[in-house]
Amino acid sequence: MTGSRRPGPSVRTRVRELTGAGQRVREDRLITEEPLELRLAWPGTPAHRVWLTMRTPGHDFELAAGWLHHEGIGAPATVVYCTDEELRPDQELNVVTATLADVPLRLPGGRDAALSAGSSACGVCGSDSVAAALEVAAAAARDTEPLDDEVVRALPDRLRERQTLFDRTGGVHAAGLFDAAGTPLVVREDVGRHNAVDKVTGARLLAGESPAVAALAVSGRAGFELVQKALAAGIGTLVAVGAPTSLAVDLARSGGLALFGFTGPERTVRYA
Amino acid sequence: MTGSRRPGPSVRTRVRELTGAGQRVREDRLITEEPLELRLAWPGTPAHRVWLTMRTPGHDFELAAGWLHHEGIGAPATVVYCTDEELRPDQELNVVTATLADVPLRLPGGRDAALSAGSSACGVCGSDSVAAALEVAAAAARDTEPLDDEVVRALPDRLRERQTLFDRTGGVHAAGLFDAAGTPLVVREDVGRHNAVDKVTGARLLAGESPAVAALAVSGRAGFELVQKALAAGIGTLVAVGAPTSLAVDLARSGGLALFGFTGPERTVRYA
Repeated sequence: MTGSRRPGPSVRTRVRELTGAGQRVREDRLITEEPLELRLAWPGTPAHRVWLTMRTPGHDFELAAGWLHHEGIGAPATVVYCTDEELRPDQELNVVTATLADVPLRLPGGRDAALSAGSSACGVCGSDSVAAALEVAAAAARDTEPLDDEVVRALPDRLRERQTLFDRTGGVHAAGLFDAAGTPLVVREDVGRHNAVDKVTGARLLAGESPAVAALAVSGRAGFELVQKALAAGIGTLVAVGAPTSLAVDLARSGGLALFGFTGPERTVRYA
Repeated sequence: MTGSRRPGPSVRTRVRELTGAGQRVREDRLITEEPLELRLAWPGTPAHRVWLTMRTPGHDFELAAGWLHHEGIGAPATVVYCTDEELRPDQELNVVTATLADVPLRLPGGRDAALSAGSSACGVCGSDSVAAALEVAAAAARDTEPLDDEVVRALPDRLRERQTLFDRTGGVHAAGLFDAAGTPLVVREDVGRHNAVDKVTGARLLAGESPAVAALAVSGRAGFELVQKALAAGIGTLVAVGAPTSLAVDLARSGGLALFGFTGPERTVRYA
């Protein structure tokens, strides 16, 4: 892929700042948002599209590996950018193909595949969503080492210190994996919070290390999807800067995940 | 649907608050998050699933009507909760069926339908996403009346004053439609920012009014999807509290949408 025009994680633009005192034109930096298509292949089954997301370019193979792990599909033997003859150069870096060495542990899709499944009463309520997430989580080795309260309250600042893209653009989410002492293991930033979580798990997997670590910290809120990913990765504690949702708390309690919201240096609130 | 256990927009729970000084158990309120399945029918085509989202229950018919409008699919003649015999009572309020009087203007799907489309090089890059969004937007009547700078800077506070769910839970997004003088027309809150935008457009449509108004204000950031919805609704100005993304700015400039980010009483930044 060297030689292709790889989009950076942020881009320059000219903006007009307007205050009560007047206006001025200045340079600004925007977080890059581009679509990414994930294609999946396994023995006997050619590569086909299984996911499409808007993400910040960079760490795309980690994003793919982490997403596949969180969906319970399996670990890819290879992940590469596509070189499909039909693709224009500006598309090639937005399409990755993951190849499994064996058949998937679960067929890709879940919620998304259901979109094309036509009309059937296949479990559209919170408790069904919780049950489906627990099924994937059951396969994960878990690191349940608890964190001291002081460590929990310190994680958002430790995450924030490593948010270099946020410093430049002010508009990007972050996720970080930490050990039980609060030492950062890996931090990633992305326009989508769920992508940042996929990337930290994928970073561990591609480095040959387990994503089942003591804690995951995220900027912003903690919804159902984030708890689902934390459980699928085998993480023991999820620490959010913002509020959790009702279904996130239900799933965390059912899955035995320690869930903290509204976390800062002065206080945190334990929901599960 | 009267008589069914309709989930409220927030739920009570017991939490443990931890500070350096110690801990206390107290009551807290969580924003409700539940899946919603949208089924679509039209003459000659029975109801089938076209969308699944996690949302805060309430204003579900508005959510359906707004989503269909923003996707360029059309206006439903009816929207009802499902009473499918296969559905349990707790599922019925999470499945709505919209029926079009005629064939769809565009087939439902777009990005989502592509998930099941197999491998094809169908335009995975930012400029293709912009082109597809402009195609839907071209059908919309537009209200391009510009807003005074002072009005733009005042919108986030006017939105915030009406965020009653946020006051209770601290974890919910909001969207509001405003006229060019900054008068609020409709405000909705949801766990998903994109759902809140669908709901304000749907509220106008179900009231027999045009969603093509002068301004849309949103809590948080402005990504590609929000600009896409604003253009599809025919809105002239989008005001965000947080940062826009690169693709949001590209689309706003191409579509002629005035886009403001980092907006508060003291200042705003114009990106497009």
